[in-house]
Amino acid sequence: MQRQPVSIFERAFKKLVSGGLESVGRRGSDILSIAEDLPEADIAIVKEWIDDCLSENGGQVEARKRAALLGRAYLKLTTTGRTRFLGLLAEHYGVNEMTVESAIDQWHNAKPNEKTEAAQSLRKALIPSRTALLKQFNGVPSGVKFLVDMREELLRLRKDYPQLRPLETDLRDLLATWFDIGLLQLEEISWNSSGAMLEKLIAYEAVHAIKSWSDLKNRLDFDRRCFAFIHPNMPDEPLIFVEVALVNGLADNVQRLLDEHAPTEDIDKADTAIFYSISNAQQGLAGISFGNFLIKQVVSKLQVEFPQLKQFATLSPIPGFRRWLENTPADQLMQLPGGEQWLSTPPPRDPVLASKEDTTGTQQEAIMKLAAAYLSSTKPGTSRANDPVANFHLSNGAQLARLNWMADTSDKGLKQSAGLMVNYLYELPKIVQRSNQYTSQGIISQSSNIKKLLR
Amino acid sequence: MQRQPVSIFERAFKKLVSGGLESVGRRGSDILSIAEDLPEADIAIVKEWIDDCLSENGGQVEARKRAALLGRAYLKLTTTGRTRFLGLLAEHYGVNEMTVESAIDQWHNAKPNEKTEAAQSLRKALIPSRTALLKQFNGVPSGVKFLVDMREELLRLRKDYPQLRPLETDLRDLLATWFDIGLLQLEEISWNSSGAMLEKLIAYEAVHAIKSWSDLKNRLDFDRRCFAFIHPNMPDEPLIFVEVALVNGLADNVQRLLDEHAPTEDIDKADTAIFYSISNAQQGLAGISFGNFLIKQVVSKLQVEFPQLKQFATLSPIPGFRRWLENTPADQLMQLPGGEQWLSTPPPRDPVLASKEDTTGTQQEAIMKLAAAYLSSTKPGTSRANDPVANFHLSNGAQLARLNWMADTSDKGLKQSAGLMVNYLYELPKIVQRSNQYTSQGIISQSSNIKKLLR
Amino acid sequence: MQRQPVSIFERAFKKLVSGGLESVGRRGSDILSIAEDLPEADIAIVKEWIDDCLSENGGQVEARKRAALLGRAYLKLTTTGRTRFLGLLAEHYGVNEMTVESAIDQWHNAKPNEKTEAAQSLRKALIPSRTALLKQFNGVPSGVKFLVDMREELLRLRKDYPQLRPLETDLRDLLATWFDIGLLQLEEISWNSSGAMLEKLIAYEAVHAIKSWSDLKNRLDFDRRCFAFIHPNMPDEPLIFVEVALVNGLADNVQRLLDEHAPTEDIDKADTAIFYSISNAQQGLAGISFGNFLIKQVVSKLQVEFPQLKQFATLSPIPGFRRWLENTPADQLMQLPGGEQWLSTPPPRDPVLASKEDTTGTQQEAIMKLAAAYLSSTKPGTSRANDPVANFHLSNGAQLARLNWMADTSDKGLKQSAGLMVNYLYELPKIVQRSNQYTSQGIISQSSNIKKLLR
Amino acid sequence: MQRQPVSIFERAFKKLVSGGLESVGRRGSDILSIAEDLPEADIAIVKEWIDDCLSENGGQVEARKRAALLGRAYLKLTTTGRTRFLGLLAEHYGVNEMTVESAIDQWHNAKPNEKTEAAQSLRKALIPSRTALLKQFNGVPSGVKFLVDMREELLRLRKDYPQLRPLETDLRDLLATWFDIGLLQLEEISWNSSGAMLEKLIAYEAVHAIKSWSDLKNRLDFDRRCFAFIHPNMPDEPLIFVEVALVNGLADNVQRLLDEHAPTEDIDKADTAIFYSISNAQQGLAGISFGNFLIKQVVSKLQVEFPQLKQFATLSPIPGFRRWLENTPADQLMQLPGGEQWLSTPPPRDPVLASKEDTTGTQQEAIMKLAAAYLSSTKPGTSRANDPVANFHLSNGAQLARLNWMADTSDKGLKQSAGLMVNYLYELPKIVQRSNQYTSQGIISQSSNIKKLLR
Repeated sequence: MQRQPVSIFERAFKKLVSGGLESVGRRGSDILSIAEDLPEADIAIVKEWIDDCLSENGGQVEARKRAALLGRAYLKLTTTGRTRFLGLLAEHYGVNEMTVESAIDQWHNAKPNEKTEAAQSLRKALIPSRTALLKQFNGVPSGVKFLVDMREELLRLRKDYPQLRPLETDLRDLLATWFDIGLLQLEEISWNSSGAMLEKLIAYEAVHAIKSWSDLKNRLDFDRRCFAFIHPNMPDEPLIFVEVALVNGLADNVQRLLDEHAPTEDIDKADTAIFYSISNAQQGLAGISFGNFLIKQVVSKLQVEFPQLKQFATLSPIPGFRRWLENTPADQLMQLPGGEQWLSTPPPRDPVLASKEDTTGTQQEAIMKLAAAYLSSTKPGTSRANDPVANFHLSNGAQLARLNWMADTSDKGLKQSAGLMVNYLYELPKIVQRSNQYTSQGIISQSSNIKKLLR
Repeated sequence: MQRQPVSIFERAFKKLVSGGLESVGRRGSDILSIAEDLPEADIAIVKEWIDDCLSENGGQVEARKRAALLGRAYLKLTTTGRTRFLGLLAEHYGVNEMTVESAIDQWHNAKPNEKTEAAQSLRKALIPSRTALLKQFNGVPSGVKFLVDMREELLRLRKDYPQLRPLETDLRDLLATWFDIGLLQLEEISWNSSGAMLEKLIAYEAVHAIKSWSDLKNRLDFDRRCFAFIHPNMPDEPLIFVEVALVNGLADNVQRLLDEHAPTEDIDKADTAIFYSISNAQQGLAGISFGNFLIKQVVSKLQVEFPQLKQFATLSPIPGFRRWLENTPADQLMQLPGGEQWLSTPPPRDPVLASKEDTTGTQQEAIMKLAAAYLSSTKPGTSRANDPVANFHLSNGAQLARLNWMADTSDKGLKQSAGLMVNYLYELPKIVQRSNQYTSQGIISQSSNIKKLLR
Repeated sequence: MQRQPVSIFERAFKKLVSGGLESVGRRGSDILSIAEDLPEADIAIVKEWIDDCLSENGGQVEARKRAALLGRAYLKLTTTGRTRFLGLLAEHYGVNEMTVESAIDQWHNAKPNEKTEAAQSLRKALIPSRTALLKQFNGVPSGVKFLVDMREELLRLRKDYPQLRPLETDLRDLLATWFDIGLLQLEEISWNSSGAMLEKLIAYEAVHAIKSWSDLKNRLDFDRRCFAFIHPNMPDEPLIFVEVALVNGLADNVQRLLDEHAPTEDIDKADTAIFYSISNAQQGLAGISFGNFLIKQVVSKLQVEFPQLKQFATLSPIPGFRRWLENTPADQLMQLPGGEQWLSTPPPRDPVLASKEDTTGTQQEAIMKLAAAYLSSTKPGTSRANDPVANFHLSNGAQLARLNWMADTSDKGLKQSAGLMVNYLYELPKIVQRSNQYTSQGIISQSSNIKKLLR
Repeated sequence: MQRQPVSIFERAFKKLVSGGLESVGRRGSDILSIAEDLPEADIAIVKEWIDDCLSENGGQVEARKRAALLGRAYLKLTTTGRTRFLGLLAEHYGVNEMTVESAIDQWHNAKPNEKTEAAQSLRKALIPSRTALLKQFNGVPSGVKFLVDMREELLRLRKDYPQLRPLETDLRDLLATWFDIGLLQLEEISWNSSGAMLEKLIAYEAVHAIKSWSDLKNRLDFDRRCFAFIHPNMPDEPLIFVEVALVNGLADNVQRLLDEHAPTEDIDKADTAIFYSISNAQQGLAGISFGNFLIKQVVSKLQVEFPQLKQFATLSPIPGFRRWLENTPADQLMQLPGGEQWLSTPPPRDPVLASKEDTTGTQQEAIMKLAAAYLSSTKPGTSRANDPVANFHLSNGAQLARLNWMADTSDKGLKQSAGLMVNYLYELPKIVQRSNQYTSQGIISQSSNIKKLLR
């Protein structure tokens, strides 16, 4: 009895995907209307299937099984098929307006002591019916990862198919509840972690690409640490991870830090933990942030393991610097420290060239000053730093501590950050105050070092 | 800076609890008004503290820390203090009616393509502000268990303080999302499980009390199995667990099944798995059901480990039988199979006495017939069996298979079930159909055995 | 083909055990000669079976399988049968004297550069053939434990059957190699350990009996620690374990220490770790000692976890005290501190009575002095303390630090130690020197406290 | 007190190694005499240190600590220094001949009932004193691996310094006891194994080199299995491992089997398990064999996981074939099946060329016949197959089942095996008999397929 609907279902899905449906590719077209080009029966079968999951016919256990089959079928679909299936969910399985209206009436008519119950009824009426199906999908093996990936796909598709937005936000809300920070586990990743986990680090590292397994092993050596948040239902998947080097003094160059041939540091002499890379691993969890928790929990862990540590700092890129430098009008640059100096350089004004040809150091000085100015600038009318990485660390309560010349000479480092890197310093007793001052008034804490550059 | 508010807070809490507040004990009294008997300042301090958590002043990490402190303080409160704190949350941190009204207006004015967004805004406006605090509590060590226990307390307090209801239902909704079945893990509990886990079985067993650690060990012997659902954030806490005996043929007596001195069964010859006990372990998760999932997943597990198994059945109590027998008017009993027979017995009509003194077997026959009738009866106007255990297994798709005389001669067994026990049979190919027929039409599948009794 | 020999074997074994063999019980009788009362064929079958294992017919894997079957059969035997089987091994599977003689000749004739090889050949010739069978037995599930238990049985049987001695010592040598301290793992036992492990603590505790699971749980509370050595092939079996209490100051009473109703100590204030119980768990490993390693490794572990600890000491019984007190002739006692005082007490001279009736404290003083004298005495002509527990800790390098009056008022404590207990102090920087002085010269380090008693 | 000897020791060791000692490199020279070129004092210090370990001064725990320091120093030595240190052990810490002679006398004088005890004493006298030190080394972290690596070094050095042989064999005997098969654990290696374990597979694979991590991942895919024996004290080190492919029918080409781009096999349809690679991982355990246990235990595991498997076979190289073919005199080849055919091929007679240019198939036929003859041949006067891989599988009880043409076209495959590979078939019910017939009489079981080639 169970077998048959599956095959009908799979046949229906195959039709959704194949044969003469190229038109689906059109940007912004109405998904459903295209899906409705299909023989009525096929759409009907898919909807019947969804309805069958939602009705919990034969009990919840059976309903979950059907949803799991639906999920498996979904995974086999092409992008076109998935788009249609998601469109079906987005457009047909929302809230029932009649039910909402009647719940609103109830709310309006409720006596004071009935108000909270009326609110709950109204809230329930506002939960789209598709949410129940989304929950059922977690019965698919690796079901939570399945939903995270589904959201990743939705975020991509949403650009062309704005109709998918409601579904995407429903899914975000569901994932935000499941991925509540208190439910996550902080895990140390080491060379003893599984191959399945380690390959994810290579795949997901977003700041300084991991070139090989031996590069990875070097980053997990005795004088290094790596920590990740893990969700218990996605045990082989880091959600976000940070790489730390234990060194003596503030690190000023990332290539030296990652040099596989450099000797291992004497960990007993290390007084500084450098957070040199932090990467979000799951696109499907965009908008659900863990980064600030991760850094602070890792600081606590390191303090226990290495009581001798005196400084916690980053070695960070300045990803928006060069774009800003090139796009800021000359008259505005002139107002800034180093601006005049920089503009007096004969064109082409290129910070990378400067680093090589500038024997006097004037251009270097100009660039450092301008970078300090850029990092200290906020978006007009806001208390948000222009640079996204700066904004992340400043809102966490860090201080803008030091600029390092030719600190990242990789292609990406030169292209985005003009080879500069910056140390953000986490001074634990001052974190709360700095975070508050930054987020409420846009005040950016600067070391004397930085202040000198800005003079 | 952080230290000070804590001590103020703790001082405030102490006042909430101690000194001349016996009046709080009054049943049904208004919690808040009592709390408001307190000097304004103290209430203010607690509210300030809660507000401080909700505002996320200094960042989310710091806010969670404050919530953790609040949670720790809560754990130290007496029932009175907890009641007041919960009352504060229930009455002061609900939805903002103005915001709701304005979101309703938006909804009414939304164009068709703005409708879903308006629905989301309205839904968000309907989330009480306390929900954010509840989520923050999971930062307390064992935070999830903390919230489960808080709900257990709310369910208890709710009877006297109906004002707590909105808070209790908010918490239920939150827990229902976190304890979604797909997020749980099925774990086998054995003598290799931790002491911390094993003592919970003893504490939580609700059907046939575990008398000692050796009784427990016997239930985890080679010919027994025990499975539980676990939430990854409460690793030492079973949510629900089932105990299984592997035997030859349908078991008909629970004392024999649990006899510590009986020899271990030859597991290779076992053809039947008897589910003889299923217990919900967390009062705080009342209303969030896992039982049907548990039984079906355990059946799957057992089929893999013991391909020779041919039957899956329970040996269950009939907890409502004697009460029903004693409270059903004679004229109604007369209509039922065995009724006349039973009523012709000279008083006192006591099924337990009957079992001892009735040499002819007439009374035994009468009782068995009446029990079959009771188990087959539904609540007036519903398709729900009168007996709660029957309702659970029948809605799972089981069949009412066999009644067993003097099958549970414990005090509880005699008092509730007149010593009878029943086997519910799970015939896998028929589960869906039986579940559907029962839940939609109240049709109870009966073995020929039971049918004979009902003739 | 494989099946048949097993049944013959089992039949043969049954004969070995049953029918008319009561004579086997005779103390000191020749096991083999009794076994030889059996029809020749049956002995022959058992020997054939053993030979079949040793010949490695069909390869080592098959030989191990046969040995496993032999092992399983052995487990089913009664003591009589086991005695015979072991006797067979002890008397028939020793070294081949001819081979030994020829290897001795080779040794004598070896040129200087051939000497080591000749030594190896001779050593090999001296390995009894049974050793190969003993090794094969570890293929039985839990094979290592099987051999440990076999040695326990041999140690017991050896008293009546001295012929078993060679087998027992062979087995000891084999186990000593496998249970080399470097191959063991130090494991913390906690309430999170398995039920299978925890029940062993209850069974094996040899100093202060664990009365119940709640007594056990109390000993594993926040302010307690328990550590055991584990062999990786016997993962659920402690070899030896020590129980530690974290307290403030030297503990002076074991009942108070074990009181389940006493509040948990504030672990942050603890400055002393008290080793209040150390138990060997495996009789079959008698003569292979781990105790000194255990204490020292545990001290290292505790120092890492609790840097604030200042003292490591025991609270130990004086198991030989009362027996010594009662058996030492009066003239000898007179020579000792407290002796005269004690003998001037009117009979019956009973230290336990003394503790109750002696209002002046004179008797108490006498007993304390005599106990100090006893603990400081060595066996004539040796540097070994009279008291076995004293000898253990003193050879580890501990100091005799303090005597405690009425420190163990259990029946056993009163009966053996007259209610006294003693603290041995492990002062880490002095351990090596004290151990050397004690083991080489019998010098017992004493605190000023003890010295005062001895004046 | 403890510190000082270490530094003296390290200084002494430095002298052993450095300064003007190039002469040590001389092949076959007397190690000790060279070491004795050193100032007497330095040798004396090293010996003193060793003696200090052996005397167990200050207790066993302290002795082990000193041995650990000695071990750490050893690890820092150059090959020269190690050679000298090992030479010292080999020549100075053997048996005491006087003690041996006196034990021999005891043996000769022993009465019948004293004989076994005398044998034990003699055996003990024959244990070289260095053995105690070797055991102490396992207190070094990773001590067991340390000793395994020390033996690897000894096996290498032994060629030039035959004096090291006694030490090497002592160490072998010790390791053989610790690495007894019953003490090892069979572990499945998968992509969930640790990076530390996985990199060892890449390093140790000896048959078909693993080219990259993606090659490795492919070998651990759904339709592959990998198993290793692990010693519990060397948890990240495989001792030996086997790689298995689950396929349909006998595999006939290893490149196809290892093709990363080939689709994953449908595991449900697999009827054959192909053991395509088996590698010993620890050179230091040479002479202690596990291979036959590994294959048979893996067969048992696979039977449980995949009851549908019908065949267990290898796909093996014929490493000695081409060398044999080139070195066998023509007149002998002429006697063999295919020999005449092959010799009638015009020179250069090259099987690899043949595979490309031989359009008629005559040469291919000749080579296949000769390979069958080679595999079926035994070493003169023995029952041992000429080919080492053949000998391994045949002594395990396998059958020579099928030759595969151009089955390994890697450089190594062509060079050693002329591109041929052979399937050895493990037919479970016939394993014992085949193993016996092969090992006792040199009878090689051949499939009809092979027999046809030999006709």
